[in-house]
Amino acid sequence: MSKEITAGILVIGDEILSGRTKDKNIGYIAECLTTVGINLSEARVVPDDETRIISALNEMRNNYTYVLTTGGIGPTHDDITADCVAKAFGVEISENDEAIKMLLERIPAADLNESRRRMARIPHGAKLVENKVSKAPGFQLGNVFVMAGVPSIMQAMLDVIITRMETGTKLLSCTIKTNIKEGDIAPILRAIQEENHSVTIGSYPFYNDTGFGANVVCRGKDASVIKKVCNEIVARLSSYGKLEIDEEIK
Amino acid sequence: MSKEITAGILVIGDEILSGRTKDKNIGYIAECLTTVGINLSEARVVPDDETRIISALNEMRNNYTYVLTTGGIGPTHDDITADCVAKAFGVEISENDEAIKMLLERIPAADLNESRRRMARIPHGAKLVENKVSKAPGFQLGNVFVMAGVPSIMQAMLDVIITRMETGTKLLSCTIKTNIKEGDIAPILRAIQEENHSVTIGSYPFYNDTGFGANVVCRGKDASVIKKVCNEIVARLSSYGKLEIDEEIK
Repeated sequence: MSKEITAGILVIGDEILSGRTKDKNIGYIAECLTTVGINLSEARVVPDDETRIISALNEMRNNYTYVLTTGGIGPTHDDITADCVAKAFGVEISENDEAIKMLLERIPAADLNESRRRMARIPHGAKLVENKVSKAPGFQLGNVFVMAGVPSIMQAMLDVIITRMETGTKLLSCTIKTNIKEGDIAPILRAIQEENHSVTIGSYPFYNDTGFGANVVCRGKDASVIKKVCNEIVARLSSYGKLEIDEEIK
Repeated sequence: MSKEITAGILVIGDEILSGRTKDKNIGYIAECLTTVGINLSEARVVPDDETRIISALNEMRNNYTYVLTTGGIGPTHDDITADCVAKAFGVEISENDEAIKMLLERIPAADLNESRRRMARIPHGAKLVENKVSKAPGFQLGNVFVMAGVPSIMQAMLDVIITRMETGTKLLSCTIKTNIKEGDIAPILRAIQEENHSVTIGSYPFYNDTGFGANVVCRGKDASVIKKVCNEIVARLSSYGKLEIDEEIK
């Protein structure tokens, strides 16, 4: 069996915890990691608080192959992520020449004031992560990748980061959408799950204008085994209601 | 100073970590807690894994006044939240008569099979949380509130839960939206923050078709102090660009 590659996401920001800003990064990163076979094991949102950030970061970087952070790398007083990462790793932080050059690609030299220069403060030993949108870079230190919180900028950084990660065997999935209620088919799903350990069967109920239903999702690394399990589910549920199965396993 | 009331959210579900389902509950709960003066201190997403759920739950219930969980209380084999909560508290779990009655309000007795009865398994000592949408209840054990993951059902449960919580002094906020770049005003914001400790000033950059800008948010418990700080920010930033201030502090 190949080594499992895991990741944790650390979202840093009072604005998410106050509900003012709705996080859009966790779902985006999750989907991206799944595509490349990295198993997202945890996502955590913490406030702009040094102690909390450092403690979460140290816990997560010990537990997972990679940690991806979002938020807190701008020019204002509440942007403390880079300093926290330096402290978590016990390294110095100072202005990075290469980062200043990146900022100058976008910002006229006369506008590169002290606040903007803060965005070039990078922990020693870190490798920069370029950013095509606003130029202010993210960075990588050890197994930690530090990204912006603004989704369009985070996404540009993630495109770069993903090329630097060791990736795994892509987790494939196939969904069977049904108007059957979970409670009618739970024993069948449980039995099929118990007979097939290399495929994970998840059942996700939904509720909308047309009533209740469920998406039954089969996940695994071998398409032929997923296909077999899906066929068995469809065969055993067909008398209970309508079933729509994904055309492709992907 | 009044006691601070804190909360943590524990989102339980492989489907969120795989990116298949995008979480909509954290933002909704966050906003609701802020309105009633409860300080959301952390949100965490963990997989459908007993050890991980129990460990996160025990950590969070010790750290915060309240913990709210979402997900994993349906009738299928992957719904393990209620059992995990019982284990975390070291109590028994069994079918609860009151919960069965609630299920019977929606489900005909003939359809109340073993799987559906699973939704009535409640840890001993827990108080039920009714659910107007699908009737299957959530529950409260100690300082932990267990809710469904389907947003419409979670929201119905949250309406009930919020009435059972000790609430705090509502955190008020006022936003100044500006087309000024953060990097131009960071020193001013920092200085105003340093002079005003009872108001938290957050600066949240955005990037859209019209370019960069920032939302400067002042948060605190005293509307008159927020007003004073906002007025100072507006006065000192007015020469830098366009400023739109919330009409109301709320």
